[in-house]
Amino acid sequence: MKIKYDPEKTVKVIPLGGLEQIGMNITAFETESSIVVVDCGLSFPDDEMLGIDLVIPDVTYLEDNADKLKGFVITHGHEDHIGALPYVLKQVSAPVYATKLTMGIIENKFREHGLMKSVRRKVVSYGQSINLGDFRIEFVRTNHSIADSAMLAITTPAGVIFHTGDFKVDYTPVYGEMIDLQRIAEIGKKGVLALMCDSTNVMKPGYTMSERTVGRTFDNIFDDHRDSRIIVATFASNVDRVQQIINSAQKYKRKVVIEGRSMINIIATASELGYINIPDGIMIDIEHMKNYTDDQIVLITTGSQGEAMAALPRMAASIHKKISIKPGDTVIFSSTPIPGNEKSVSKVVNELMHLGAHVIVQDTHVSGHACQEEIKLIYALTKPKYVLPVHGEYKHLKTHAELAKSMGIPKEDIFILQSGNVLELSYSKAAITDHVAARGILVDGLGVGDVGNIVLRDRQLLSENGLIIIVLTLEKGSNQVLAGPDIVSRGFVYVRESENLMEEALEVVETALERCMKRNVTDWGKIKIEIRDSLGDFIRKRTKRNPMILPIIMEC
Amino acid sequence: MKIKYDPEKTVKVIPLGGLEQIGMNITAFETESSIVVVDCGLSFPDDEMLGIDLVIPDVTYLEDNADKLKGFVITHGHEDHIGALPYVLKQVSAPVYATKLTMGIIENKFREHGLMKSVRRKVVSYGQSINLGDFRIEFVRTNHSIADSAMLAITTPAGVIFHTGDFKVDYTPVYGEMIDLQRIAEIGKKGVLALMCDSTNVMKPGYTMSERTVGRTFDNIFDDHRDSRIIVATFASNVDRVQQIINSAQKYKRKVVIEGRSMINIIATASELGYINIPDGIMIDIEHMKNYTDDQIVLITTGSQGEAMAALPRMAASIHKKISIKPGDTVIFSSTPIPGNEKSVSKVVNELMHLGAHVIVQDTHVSGHACQEEIKLIYALTKPKYVLPVHGEYKHLKTHAELAKSMGIPKEDIFILQSGNVLELSYSKAAITDHVAARGILVDGLGVGDVGNIVLRDRQLLSENGLIIIVLTLEKGSNQVLAGPDIVSRGFVYVRESENLMEEALEVVETALERCMKRNVTDWGKIKIEIRDSLGDFIRKRTKRNPMILPIIMEC
Repeated sequence: MKIKYDPEKTVKVIPLGGLEQIGMNITAFETESSIVVVDCGLSFPDDEMLGIDLVIPDVTYLEDNADKLKGFVITHGHEDHIGALPYVLKQVSAPVYATKLTMGIIENKFREHGLMKSVRRKVVSYGQSINLGDFRIEFVRTNHSIADSAMLAITTPAGVIFHTGDFKVDYTPVYGEMIDLQRIAEIGKKGVLALMCDSTNVMKPGYTMSERTVGRTFDNIFDDHRDSRIIVATFASNVDRVQQIINSAQKYKRKVVIEGRSMINIIATASELGYINIPDGIMIDIEHMKNYTDDQIVLITTGSQGEAMAALPRMAASIHKKISIKPGDTVIFSSTPIPGNEKSVSKVVNELMHLGAHVIVQDTHVSGHACQEEIKLIYALTKPKYVLPVHGEYKHLKTHAELAKSMGIPKEDIFILQSGNVLELSYSKAAITDHVAARGILVDGLGVGDVGNIVLRDRQLLSENGLIIIVLTLEKGSNQVLAGPDIVSRGFVYVRESENLMEEALEVVETALERCMKRNVTDWGKIKIEIRDSLGDFIRKRTKRNPMILPIIMEC
Repeated sequence: MKIKYDPEKTVKVIPLGGLEQIGMNITAFETESSIVVVDCGLSFPDDEMLGIDLVIPDVTYLEDNADKLKGFVITHGHEDHIGALPYVLKQVSAPVYATKLTMGIIENKFREHGLMKSVRRKVVSYGQSINLGDFRIEFVRTNHSIADSAMLAITTPAGVIFHTGDFKVDYTPVYGEMIDLQRIAEIGKKGVLALMCDSTNVMKPGYTMSERTVGRTFDNIFDDHRDSRIIVATFASNVDRVQQIINSAQKYKRKVVIEGRSMINIIATASELGYINIPDGIMIDIEHMKNYTDDQIVLITTGSQGEAMAALPRMAASIHKKISIKPGDTVIFSSTPIPGNEKSVSKVVNELMHLGAHVIVQDTHVSGHACQEEIKLIYALTKPKYVLPVHGEYKHLKTHAELAKSMGIPKEDIFILQSGNVLELSYSKAAITDHVAARGILVDGLGVGDVGNIVLRDRQLLSENGLIIIVLTLEKGSNQVLAGPDIVSRGFVYVRESENLMEEALEVVETALERCMKRNVTDWGKIKIEIRDSLGDFIRKRTKRNPMILPIIMEC
């Protein structure tokens, strides 16, 4: 069933997220008649995106080419690869292909969003291939910090594109088998047109450690703290980590409590589908903790990144409804802080220590992503013609490009793509030939895309210096002032302690108004500008601040 | 001239900043007739302190006891130890004591704030003691990431309090001599009542490396990049680091350009006072760079922590007026990111790499602060009765307390003080006996203390979901609506794309108003509450957002 390919045929590779929206992993592959999309992730807002909950990809291009869209093929069940599916599948319609655990996690989302009936789904096994229009896609077994992760060998009319998804090489994985290096080699031997390879840890030399090595450190901690209640925080999706905590609990005769909504959901799915081995009777409900002594309990929880709304940070802030941290508790952070989260994690550590807990921040050097030597191994096995580093910030992709060069790939065959770039590939040539819309769409509450740059700029301005509102009512026709001007401020200064300032501000506004009247300015727009400019100057001079100034004129 | 002390006499130790305001190092020492203050630092705002520029200590207690205040004694010239001096010295009057370089840096500030005439200053040498009321204070030579740092041996009527300031043990410092361990031992031998010791690196085992080790890595980088323009970013105040860059520049025959206001100031002061050795003719003005080729230049600049307004981040963002980054440039970050700055640094690295620069992030393991073994050495030399860990977050102070216990200090003799705690110490007993005002004062632009929690809460609310303003004019007496209600929003949604929502919102307000009229509600406060509540419910239901809702009623 091998698709023959033609050295003159081309395939387009179009990242619809990625470099500009880290985490939003979504890439379209296109021929004349078919489009398949690999992954459909969401990203979390930057510090500047005030009030935004999440960012999802712009799929206008897929909508415009809906007739060609054959399906979404998913590498693994992390938010940055599946999180936008429920949003995107309300805009375009296509079946979803994934391995069993990945599909289980996707279905949890679909249930919440009422998509179980409308979206077709197919569970794929490792080694299995699916045919989608001009494409044939094989799922290849790999290792990562979530079970059932896959690499994809995408056979296109122009040749095979090998997409690693997120991966590491783990010779001793906790669940399942090691990465299928033989099959990767076989695919490589037949010829790989392009390699799209995980860049997350490309700046780190050497190899990442096996997940299994963490198990030993848990045993040691459990042994050292036999009298203490043990609380372990880790990523909700790291089922193998949870498995190892349960193993230690079993060994040291403790009951296990799971707390935190996302963790409860994923562990339930993993358990149902057989991806985690939970000994009979070891799990107890949080309500039954009181029937056990501290040395009989281990609590596995979310919030290891210091996320304010997650379970552990709520315990640390003493606002968790069911768990109070107390002196003697041992709390383990079993996940390295993601860059940007260091301060939040530190805050939670301080709070826990203030409550008397003994805190252990595990520095495991275990990651779900390949370091330099593992990435080189994939190059050695696939020997690609072209290289498209994926999954990372610019510094990672650029460093990955250097690594590719060191592995003998010519500079001109390495492409660092921006979101929306259209890369046309064939064995004979490769070039960025077009650009499609691919900005992130901001989600704030229920609103998708109704907050944009202007709204964010206003929020930024408001957050820095607050605002001053000037209201007045003018008589229709005559433009006589009937009421006001009144002045109201929020987020600017303590008004009670700044009465003089506000009185003087009002005088500045009144003077500006009089100037307008004298000059017979009747255009409200001009009156507003006059008020804004004179008040702005006054405030800046007196306070060195730039509050938003908002004149409102009513007509009576 | 030794002050005799009495085992029954007490001394009060009062941190006016510290634990709750990391960086705001200021501690008062008090007897019946005298107060001296050690250090007077400022802290930078937390993420929640929107729009705030800096935080300075509340010195109400010093104002209330102005007649007892004998002076400010400063350990070294970093912002977190001297930054609040210009603000505080406008509130209280006292002389300032410091070593030569520290005083030079303080005087730069005093010049800006017009305090050179009004504040008495005295330069103190290592080994010298000053008498301030009941206190005698000896400056002891130490090492840190800025030259001329001092430890303080404070002789009080109750005994000697030994304050380390910020320190490391550097046997091979770049400038000056190593820490005076002999003198510390001598002071310890005579008896130390209490040790106040730097906790910054107490969580790190071992020793911190000598500053001198960085010099070799600069030589290597200069050697590897002979053809490239070299740009090095580091802390403005790390004069020894700058010295070593200049040394490498000299060796590799490059001219040196300094860019960034704070760095230019500090290097000028250090050079004038003889703390840096600048070979003749090596410095050139930034305007003359064009007369040299890239391989003849090294640029030393600020912004190594990714601070948006500093020189290097401006170059990275292509908004620096005089320097454009270009392919082939080598940029060195010569400072470890302070926790919380990782993301900003990463952003600047990405931007620089995007512009084609080769970026080196030096992981020097050189710090200005003592690690565990160095701290233990100070314990071994001073053998204090009481221990007061200083300079760190709670987790550092708590870990320091554990270390003190491991060095044989009884638990009850270790005190982790909160800002404002009054600790009374004597050889026979020690206890926290009182609490004085010691909240941080927020500085926003020219305003000192006019922004507080309410204003910050408003800014937070505004930053998350923006605001909706409802204005209407009511007739005096009759309460008839003469104008409005009008609806204005900022930072909420794109109004153009949400016309329906805003129209419905206006209907909700009108209905609320009608309800008030029907029920003859004439109290404006109640009308406002009615509007706010009904509109708030509507918006929450429709958008899952909580904008600030601000009803404004005018009278006509």
